Amino acid sequence: MNYSKLSLVLHKKFKGKLEVKSKTPLRNKHDLSISYTPGVAEVSRQIAKDKNLAYTYTLKSNSVAVITDGSAVLGLGNIGPYAALPVMEGKALLFKEFADVNAYPICLNTQDTEEIIKTIKNISVGFGGINLEDISAPKCFEIEERLKNELNIPVMHDDQHGTAIVILSALINALKVVKKEKSEIKVVVNGAGSAAIATTNLLLKYGVSGKNIIMVDTKGTIHTERTDLNPYKQKIAKKTNSKKITGDLGEALRNADVFIGVSVADVLKPEYVERMAVDPIVFAMANPNPEISIEEAKKTKIKVFGTGRSDYPNQINNILVFPGIFRGVLDSGAKKITEKMKLASAIAIASLVSKKKLSPEYIIPNPFDKRVAKVVAKAVMKVAKK
Amino acid sequence: MNYSKLSLVLHKKFKGKLEVKSKTPLRNKHDLSISYTPGVAEVSRQIAKDKNLAYTYTLKSNSVAVITDGSAVLGLGNIGPYAALPVMEGKALLFKEFADVNAYPICLNTQDTEEIIKTIKNISVGFGGINLEDISAPKCFEIEERLKNELNIPVMHDDQHGTAIVILSALINALKVVKKEKSEIKVVVNGAGSAAIATTNLLLKYGVSGKNIIMVDTKGTIHTERTDLNPYKQKIAKKTNSKKITGDLGEALRNADVFIGVSVADVLKPEYVERMAVDPIVFAMANPNPEISIEEAKKTKIKVFGTGRSDYPNQINNILVFPGIFRGVLDSGAKKITEKMKLASAIAIASLVSKKKLSPEYIIPNPFDKRVAKVVAKAVMKVAKK
Repeated sequence: MNYSKLSLVLHKKFKGKLEVKSKTPLRNKHDLSISYTPGVAEVSRQIAKDKNLAYTYTLKSNSVAVITDGSAVLGLGNIGPYAALPVMEGKALLFKEFADVNAYPICLNTQDTEEIIKTIKNISVGFGGINLEDISAPKCFEIEERLKNELNIPVMHDDQHGTAIVILSALINALKVVKKEKSEIKVVVNGAGSAAIATTNLLLKYGVSGKNIIMVDTKGTIHTERTDLNPYKQKIAKKTNSKKITGDLGEALRNADVFIGVSVADVLKPEYVERMAVDPIVFAMANPNPEISIEEAKKTKIKVFGTGRSDYPNQINNILVFPGIFRGVLDSGAKKITEKMKLASAIAIASLVSKKKLSPEYIIPNPFDKRVAKVVAKAVMKVAKK
Repeated sequence: MNYSKLSLVLHKKFKGKLEVKSKTPLRNKHDLSISYTPGVAEVSRQIAKDKNLAYTYTLKSNSVAVITDGSAVLGLGNIGPYAALPVMEGKALLFKEFADVNAYPICLNTQDTEEIIKTIKNISVGFGGINLEDISAPKCFEIEERLKNELNIPVMHDDQHGTAIVILSALINALKVVKKEKSEIKVVVNGAGSAAIATTNLLLKYGVSGKNIIMVDTKGTIHTERTDLNPYKQKIAKKTNSKKITGDLGEALRNADVFIGVSVADVLKPEYVERMAVDPIVFAMANPNPEISIEEAKKTKIKVFGTGRSDYPNQINNILVFPGIFRGVLDSGAKKITEKMKLASAIAIASLVSKKKLSPEYIIPNPFDKRVAKVVAKAVMKVAKK
């Protein structure tokens, strides 16, 4: 199927994928006087007295901004904010379809950290949440961290946390398939970008032992002796690979139970897989071409194989995560997306795969499983209540 | 009718008036692959090569941001961006209903001129036009001017130009009723805020003689001898009241043919009206209470009376203007809203009142007249083509 061609045709035909619609009637002067002037003046007066009433009377209660600077779009890299528009529109579409969240795409004409932060703060008034998207590392860390602290609405960089949550979710069920315990597994995370670091942090929170996680970047394994690490890698180095195993990916993978690739195509060689422990779990998330092709993977001893692709089994896609997460924080009125919410979301998604149906080819629900956003939202709300 | 109460009930029930909806189907993995990944990557690649293709493939072609800092909202003043939200949502509703423009409300958490300009430039990527709204004078002048020069999409401060255009439109027909010529009339504009200055400038462009226009602010008539004028008033002083008539509104109105009030309630005293020339035209635009009440106006010799209110005849409301203007620039691909477009819009609106139907009580079409936005858009496109 030539999706590129079909996509160009569709985008041209519809001139974009979103529209803004009225929910209230506007048929005559009477309607106008209620939805607009003079009636709306009283609504404004009420909010002027208590700005929290914006949640009661305006679109804020169900609106999320999907914001990017276009610096790390899909697998395309720094293609800029204009080229990011159709992707952000697509994301907004998913918010609507899966969780009835009104999401609006905002592509920023700046790639400067301070300007991005200031701009987002300036436009945050009408939004109930901020979904950061496709912003390159390492600036994405500071941008998210600062906005979480400086804004009073939930902020999430989906590339980090959406990915981390859905990987954890898949891992929970994959471990059931291979009958291994989270506290005992050895995990190699290939890649040390924003998604890789967020995933590692969430695995640690979930209970995977730090001494058994090894991160690998293009220079080799990450450990505290390395002098070439940026501050974010330095921080994660302190929490992982306590044995300071050195060498390349091939070295790291000796006796590993799990490979998580958040890197680039074809770096996982079949001979590396053979060095892994029995019944290896491999999540090859590079898009569109995974760290090992499905054809090659089939020839190895991999027991559970997952990718980001929709045309293979076990699609580990953050579509399963962000709609429900934001539905949950919007409905609960939570001002932050916490680590507990992320863990609860991962567990909730995993729980939808019944014991009966669980198999090496089915560890994670389908993106079109309507239950997913609902259970995630419910899990988030439950944490929020506490 | 208690519109305040009804409005509060409506806003609470609907939790705001707008929603973001998908135009494209999303039923299965096939749809997902076309609207989102992997198909969308090719759309992004194309736009990365030529950012003008954003108009072909994304929502940009039909999207307008309705932006305020909440510094001069309706007649409520500086109530801040949160309280401005329901008003901006209402405006977006009108864009959609009257001209099928997708408008999105953006309320800014800053009232600083430079920050406003920077923020709007930063978020302009996904919009085909910027409608500035309810920003206080004098900063609104600089903000609009700078954005017009620094952005490559149409920018209009509706409080200035929407008001100016609809007033000119009403005046064109009112002059037909009283059988007076634009070049000979004496006009008093009461108020010297942004709408008043824009109106005066447009009247000058239309052909009303500068020597016959007198602007009046709270200190009296505006003329070049005054030393207390801000730069914007100084500029307009050079173009008007060349006889340097001094005194208050009452003085200015001697033998005036037209009173245009863009000021506050009840400043036009009945005895002032009696000093005006025969068959006076009075547009009392203060909202919600006009410069002279309809009851008092009826007792005077006023021949044509218009206000901003929907419950009186001759509602001079910029609802007649902005939807069609933006429809016109979006459809023509014009990068600016020019003075010629504004004049053409005013003439187009006036033209909808047929000679047969024209009367002192009917000089301007009803806001719900579906023809209005269409003829305005057409007029704008015609100018754009030249």
